[in-house]
Amino acid sequence: MSVDFDTKILGIDLGGTKILTVVTTSQGKILSTIQNMTPVKEGRDAVIKSILESATRVIEQANMVINDISVIGIAAPGLSNPETGILFTSPNLPGWKDVPLSDMVEDKFGRKAFLINDANAAALGELYFGAGRGALNLIYVTVSTGIGGGIIINGKIYTGSIGTAGEIGHMVIDVEGPSCRCGNRGCWEALASGTALAREATERINAGESTSILKRVNGEIERINAEVIHEAARDGDRLANELVARTAYYLGVGLSNLINIFNPEIIIVGGGLSNMGNMLLKPAIKEAGRRAFKQAYREVRFAVAELGRNSGVMGAAAYALEKLSCKTGIR
Amino acid sequence: MSVDFDTKILGIDLGGTKILTVVTTSQGKILSTIQNMTPVKEGRDAVIKSILESATRVIEQANMVINDISVIGIAAPGLSNPETGILFTSPNLPGWKDVPLSDMVEDKFGRKAFLINDANAAALGELYFGAGRGALNLIYVTVSTGIGGGIIINGKIYTGSIGTAGEIGHMVIDVEGPSCRCGNRGCWEALASGTALAREATERINAGESTSILKRVNGEIERINAEVIHEAARDGDRLANELVARTAYYLGVGLSNLINIFNPEIIIVGGGLSNMGNMLLKPAIKEAGRRAFKQAYREVRFAVAELGRNSGVMGAAAYALEKLSCKTGIR
Repeated sequence: MSVDFDTKILGIDLGGTKILTVVTTSQGKILSTIQNMTPVKEGRDAVIKSILESATRVIEQANMVINDISVIGIAAPGLSNPETGILFTSPNLPGWKDVPLSDMVEDKFGRKAFLINDANAAALGELYFGAGRGALNLIYVTVSTGIGGGIIINGKIYTGSIGTAGEIGHMVIDVEGPSCRCGNRGCWEALASGTALAREATERINAGESTSILKRVNGEIERINAEVIHEAARDGDRLANELVARTAYYLGVGLSNLINIFNPEIIIVGGGLSNMGNMLLKPAIKEAGRRAFKQAYREVRFAVAELGRNSGVMGAAAYALEKLSCKTGIR
Repeated sequence: MSVDFDTKILGIDLGGTKILTVVTTSQGKILSTIQNMTPVKEGRDAVIKSILESATRVIEQANMVINDISVIGIAAPGLSNPETGILFTSPNLPGWKDVPLSDMVEDKFGRKAFLINDANAAALGELYFGAGRGALNLIYVTVSTGIGGGIIINGKIYTGSIGTAGEIGHMVIDVEGPSCRCGNRGCWEALASGTALAREATERINAGESTSILKRVNGEIERINAEVIHEAARDGDRLANELVARTAYYLGVGLSNLINIFNPEIIIVGGGLSNMGNMLLKPAIKEAGRRAFKQAYREVRFAVAELGRNSGVMGAAAYALEKLSCKTGIR
């Protein structure tokens, strides 16, 4: 088998809410794509079945058969081991424990399948096909319900000793800070994620602060999320603007840590909160600059992720291609 | 020129208090060593002169001439660029700014010289010749007056985009915490270093707490340091034990961050405070275990640095050899 311009890859991005599958060329040209909901509540077997069905259909939709596919890449949330293809646990897939995801996909399709954490995949997607093209040292930060990360060192994804590296969202930045869903306190994620933003909004509204946020969700306080707060902030709502500024502050603290630790060429910010653009990112980057070593800060470029919903699935494909190339000694 | 068992390397470790030079084989056998004080107060030129004299003598002492030396490695504190050999700034070398240290040494000896940050050098020293032999992913943490670090990824030192990577001591772990000498607040170094320990002791003694620490320094409160506190703790002093426990707590928080970010095989702790051994490290590791992801924590080994005062100078030698080998294409 040779890795050339004709190589076709099946990419699978298993998310807590959606399953996205693509057939792509090694150059990143998407030939076919399918998205469906993840039947999380129906349990693990239903989700696996849905992945396999979706993958079968996306190949058909590209007018191909499985023999046209060289390799399969799978992105999944949570902790996993890329060497064994086992998904240890995932906050977005309750009850999943030590699932041999690569093997299950390999068994079905008779093609080598490689598993990688979704944020690591997104980092690779941006490196190969997005805002990070050509970079050697790149940190990808995804800010949405949680904060995840992917570390590119010398042009390769760094996954650590058993594949769990890059959990930058669980870097403590405020040692006695708010509880995090990981069980720890004061994690970056517990202070600068969309969930943290919504939690803070809810608390301040419950404390009686006046804001247009509540009206925007028809008084249903549990519907408050980052998007609604963003809209309110854009319309000049004082509380919403304070909340965005607070998130930017904590985002900046974590970014300064990454700059001091990694001295990266580029930091790419993706995930839902990156849609807030400069309103969030400009003050965050300023805070990072106030804190980080000047020499390292001056050298780092900041960019917003370019691939949108495709970063994970395209990164999974790139990862599989990389792995295939290593094994066959072609790259 | 060939890199073989006969390769001799000149290693230089420029510290804020001492200059250590060695002639070593590529296998880590030290043939000659000289240590003298760094004439910091006499200024930059005096220090450079002292480095060059020391290097000349250590070669003579090994019964060699400069032509017997294949390459020179220099470790220095502070921020430097290993590509250009320029030392940007150093907290331990006041007034030094953008000093072309490699060029100065090359000009004197007519041999290629490579500059690397001292903590990065120590990481390499431990990787090649100490507690980290054979490791692929290794984090070296030095805890003394400050906290420094070296990051080994896939068996190579990771120095980042301009060489300042590994500043793990300036990772914020307590966003509104005490001031750090870097200008930021709540850095790991400001909470878990020897300086932080002494500062906390002084504050609590000034606040009237009873302890044997003050007697140990004959009432000269400015002489309180980590060593004295360690002795007092060993002798059962209550305050000293509380202070060590506090340092261990913050040390553990930072270690958990490193585990979550890097998922390393091994974390090696060096520097003066590592001499406290289990009294400090056991509770620190326990705190890290309470906080870090279980899967990653279970896999990481902790070790104390083995090379003592030689880790930096031996790492500088290893780095120079690595660089030489790359340039000549031998390794």
